Amino acid sequence: MNDVTDAGATFRQRLDGVAADIERVLERLLDDAPLAEERGRPQRLMDSMRYVSLAGGKRLRPFLVVETAALFKAPRARALMAGAALEFVHCYSLAHDDLPAMDNDDLRRGRPTAHRKFDEATAILAGDGLLTLAFDVLAREETHPNPAVRIALVLALARGAGLGGMVGGQMLDLAAEGRFDGGKVTKLGAADVKLLQTMKTGALLRFGCLAGAILGEATARQREALDRYGTLLGEAFQIADDLLDVEGDAATVGKATGKDAAAGKGTFVTALGLDGAKARLKDLVVQAEEALAPFGRDADVLKMAARFVAERKA
Amino acid sequence: MNDVTDAGATFRQRLDGVAADIERVLERLLDDAPLAEERGRPQRLMDSMRYVSLAGGKRLRPFLVVETAALFKAPRARALMAGAALEFVHCYSLAHDDLPAMDNDDLRRGRPTAHRKFDEATAILAGDGLLTLAFDVLAREETHPNPAVRIALVLALARGAGLGGMVGGQMLDLAAEGRFDGGKVTKLGAADVKLLQTMKTGALLRFGCLAGAILGEATARQREALDRYGTLLGEAFQIADDLLDVEGDAATVGKATGKDAAAGKGTFVTALGLDGAKARLKDLVVQAEEALAPFGRDADVLKMAARFVAERKA
Repeated sequence: MNDVTDAGATFRQRLDGVAADIERVLERLLDDAPLAEERGRPQRLMDSMRYVSLAGGKRLRPFLVVETAALFKAPRARALMAGAALEFVHCYSLAHDDLPAMDNDDLRRGRPTAHRKFDEATAILAGDGLLTLAFDVLAREETHPNPAVRIALVLALARGAGLGGMVGGQMLDLAAEGRFDGGKVTKLGAADVKLLQTMKTGALLRFGCLAGAILGEATARQREALDRYGTLLGEAFQIADDLLDVEGDAATVGKATGKDAAAGKGTFVTALGLDGAKARLKDLVVQAEEALAPFGRDADVLKMAARFVAERKA
Repeated sequence: MNDVTDAGATFRQRLDGVAADIERVLERLLDDAPLAEERGRPQRLMDSMRYVSLAGGKRLRPFLVVETAALFKAPRARALMAGAALEFVHCYSLAHDDLPAMDNDDLRRGRPTAHRKFDEATAILAGDGLLTLAFDVLAREETHPNPAVRIALVLALARGAGLGGMVGGQMLDLAAEGRFDGGKVTKLGAADVKLLQTMKTGALLRFGCLAGAILGEATARQREALDRYGTLLGEAFQIADDLLDVEGDAATVGKATGKDAAAGKGTFVTALGLDGAKARLKDLVVQAEEALAPFGRDADVLKMAARFVAERKA
């Protein structure tokens, strides 16, 4: 029993440790953002980019980069750079998804969304600026001295974030809601929900795990193991999210709940049923743990991450 | 006299030749865009990305990449890849700038803008997808076998497109219009207009010239020469644009004219006066030609490009 409690405490400490470190790195990257010249400082843009990025949160994506990179003893400072790039992409996507033309959300993590705090034009540009900054950060020598490693990160992030990944998944999601077809909601089957969510949410979480393998110059077998882990973790994350939307409490979750079901969104709960979704989630955690077998005890913290993702309450 | 006419004809042929080639490359890159799997094809997103990118036009930015790369005998196929990435960024920026929350334009190159043809959410996502695809394209081995060259392209494009470049310039432009300050329009002086436009429009044109130097693994001196040429060309382009807004004909230009002045935008014409702007434009062309001196006759087509940019009617 004590082992489990200690492990839980250790996990939480490590998660919080990365969150604190990444906050500092994000702040520094935003403060030192490359300007044409000081006179050309677009202050409102920089304020909005800070607002969108420095909203706290668990920083799960950078955590995955840091902990997968740690398997290969890759320097933590490099993992934090790649993790910051990933977090910038995640944050840009939230700012754009929240827009009136998209999900039209007023609240995010208990604060006004970017277009409510600033305005729509600023929220759009803040997202564009963060997405661009992410690639800027990956391209810097500080991220890795080997250009081949940096360019592999750029390619993997672009794939995860683009039309075969996050952006495409958001489009499929809006389409399934009947946004473009005279309000005709498509009832998605389990396979379609899985594919949509793999793209929309899973692809960036998977990149987090691939990034560690790329930074650590992993073998093909090690990279495949982390790819599989990241994919399973991504699905688990989304099922937990769908369960929270049904069973969670708005105050704890920090945003309106019950909204996805009301919008007719394709969720794992609607596709698999409540019990089916819970069973699948359990199964995914076991599989994710198994995928980490090649790394032995070194991967204990990543196994805990899988359980944490499945059991989170916010 | 015949020399000049022939040179003009040759220039137009080369410009049209790159436009035709880049159209094919853009089509191929969009058709072969990396999907998670065929079933996950976000058709409406891909249609909108095609609509935004394949609208024809002079393709001046890819032309600059191709012709600067040609100075170093870099393979044209590589220059077309980098040129396509640049054109994707240019097209994304048009789709986002046209949005109701930004410039609220209905017409672009004589066709409905992306959000009028599709809808706002699709126009936002098409832009996000194109920006991401640009970095995907630069990261591919097809762009250059040397990862150091590819990562240098990524960094330079991110700098040109980000908050120190295009996105920041757009923000300064909206701010100067009084969008965020209760409608208070800022009367910008010549130096502020220059900086704003250097960021908003110049940075991508400059990248086009830098990209050729990067692909050609130019010496520092050669790179500086092209950097200077690109910077001067960018300013000339914007002055010509501002002159067209005042003196151009909407049917030829393909969008509403007189709009910038009406919106109180900081233009070179309002800052320098009509005659001042024309004199500055002439001066910039001479300087741009001089900047190309290190390349001798090899740079004749780029000198013509500077005159073309200054004298264009659309």
